[in-house]
Amino acid sequence: MELLFLGTGSGVPSKQRNVSSIALKLLDEINSVWLFDCGEGTQQQILHTTLKPRKVDKIFITHLHGDHIYGLPGFLASRAFQGGDGPITIYGPVGIEQFVKTSLKISGTYLKYPLKFQEIKKEGIVFQDNQFTVRCLELKHGIQSFGYRIEEASHPGTLQADKVKEAGIPFGPLFGKLKNGETITLEDGRVFNGKDFIGEPHQGRIVTILGDTKKTENSRLLAENADVLVHESTFDHANRKLAKEYNHSTNVEAAETAKAANVKQLILTHISARFLPKDVYALEKEAQKIFKQTKVVKDFCEVEIPLQKDEDNL
Amino acid sequence: MELLFLGTGSGVPSKQRNVSSIALKLLDEINSVWLFDCGEGTQQQILHTTLKPRKVDKIFITHLHGDHIYGLPGFLASRAFQGGDGPITIYGPVGIEQFVKTSLKISGTYLKYPLKFQEIKKEGIVFQDNQFTVRCLELKHGIQSFGYRIEEASHPGTLQADKVKEAGIPFGPLFGKLKNGETITLEDGRVFNGKDFIGEPHQGRIVTILGDTKKTENSRLLAENADVLVHESTFDHANRKLAKEYNHSTNVEAAETAKAANVKQLILTHISARFLPKDVYALEKEAQKIFKQTKVVKDFCEVEIPLQKDEDNL
Repeated sequence: MELLFLGTGSGVPSKQRNVSSIALKLLDEINSVWLFDCGEGTQQQILHTTLKPRKVDKIFITHLHGDHIYGLPGFLASRAFQGGDGPITIYGPVGIEQFVKTSLKISGTYLKYPLKFQEIKKEGIVFQDNQFTVRCLELKHGIQSFGYRIEEASHPGTLQADKVKEAGIPFGPLFGKLKNGETITLEDGRVFNGKDFIGEPHQGRIVTILGDTKKTENSRLLAENADVLVHESTFDHANRKLAKEYNHSTNVEAAETAKAANVKQLILTHISARFLPKDVYALEKEAQKIFKQTKVVKDFCEVEIPLQKDEDNL
Repeated sequence: MELLFLGTGSGVPSKQRNVSSIALKLLDEINSVWLFDCGEGTQQQILHTTLKPRKVDKIFITHLHGDHIYGLPGFLASRAFQGGDGPITIYGPVGIEQFVKTSLKISGTYLKYPLKFQEIKKEGIVFQDNQFTVRCLELKHGIQSFGYRIEEASHPGTLQADKVKEAGIPFGPLFGKLKNGETITLEDGRVFNGKDFIGEPHQGRIVTILGDTKKTENSRLLAENADVLVHESTFDHANRKLAKEYNHSTNVEAAETAKAANVKQLILTHISARFLPKDVYALEKEAQKIFKQTKVVKDFCEVEIPLQKDEDNL
């Protein structure tokens, strides 16, 4: 599980930062990639990565501002050319379906794969299966803007080597069954239940990706105990009045939310083009004073989200 | 007057070629830039040039395929951020207004400048003032696709130095009036009419920019005696069957049209990503066998269109 930042700028693209898009790579988990927002030029950014558009099967839109959605029609059209024939579902505020369908229709674009829309009518669970639950809450951005919380189901506990050794179970082909929690019978007739040798299940990962927003309690709720919180940081502390006026956040506000929510890592993105590279460093430092595990990302940064799990030590 | 190629690829962007957009720079003439098509990522391409989006006051759309229009909403939205407050007019097939207005409305984008649409209902003159006439004819591309012919008004003739000398008119401040075709009276009482010393007017330039098309007579009509013909060349001669099937042209067909239309220069663009750099060289060579003044352009190529005018030799 990794986050790949395809566009980390705000509002208008710059030479350094394209407009918003984030890929949540779930290749090891479910052989899929989920996109969060798709600003203009996202498909061009993808050309400089190893991402396969055909692996993208869900796109979550935080809000309908152009710098978050104008790349959708082009991405969807090109995906068909690049061997994408699996279905894709787009989640987002009411209006996203009309935007995409109008664009595709007027341009005479017929996708070869099924395209589904799930416009969000109320806060809560947006998607759920055995492995992942995606919830959303509304943020505060003038226009309707959602934050998404992606929760992975817990992973089974690992086989406890010490206990196995203590019980005098010899190393062999039955280990696999034991690991799966099955009951085994040894050649000497002794019977063991795998469940007695498996540790506690490991909590799945939590990733929180917020849309553009000013500081709001829902950000904290979405981020609670998350492994990673991705937060906009359009302004710095000196420009906090501008941030408020434009319904955006500062680096410091993002750090305060990260701290209050007890997250493991804070990622700042949606950086205004006003900040030069040296200013970006200062932006990061300023936030780190409040929340140490803070990182400002650039386009094409990849952030790994490790599973908090002891490896089998056998 | 220069053509700046912002995107020279076809259908899907590649790392080398973005999707279609061409800027006709009329800075010396009218301090304006006209865009022809605006594929996704055009605003990002512009960041790598000296073009000022605020100077763009007309956008001509050849046809509604996504690789020619998906960059429009983003370009228009960002232009407002970049100090653009002058009006802009978009010319193109019926549907372009709905596409742009839907995109702007759903994304909550309010432009600070007047945006006008002139959807083309029939072939003929699309725009005309004292300096420029823009005509269009329909091409053959499955979807309605226009070619544009931009004609510059003729330039006044230049003052003929030899004749002035012969008449014994001394060099001095009256030369300016003579140049403007006014009547002057010398100190010695002799009277001269400037018109007698001005050469023939010089023909204005003609630039023909075609939308995607298979070979058709209207291409030749639009290109007749043009200084520059910009023609798509999605395929090479070996793939002429594919070209026909997909309503596109080959390099050879473009060269045949250039030859038949007696143009001065042929520019090939809309190059399929299947052609590697060495193939592009072959593509150019193959076309040059039929029409020598042929050039395949890359992204960011700039082509000057000189006025065929003798400089004043005084």
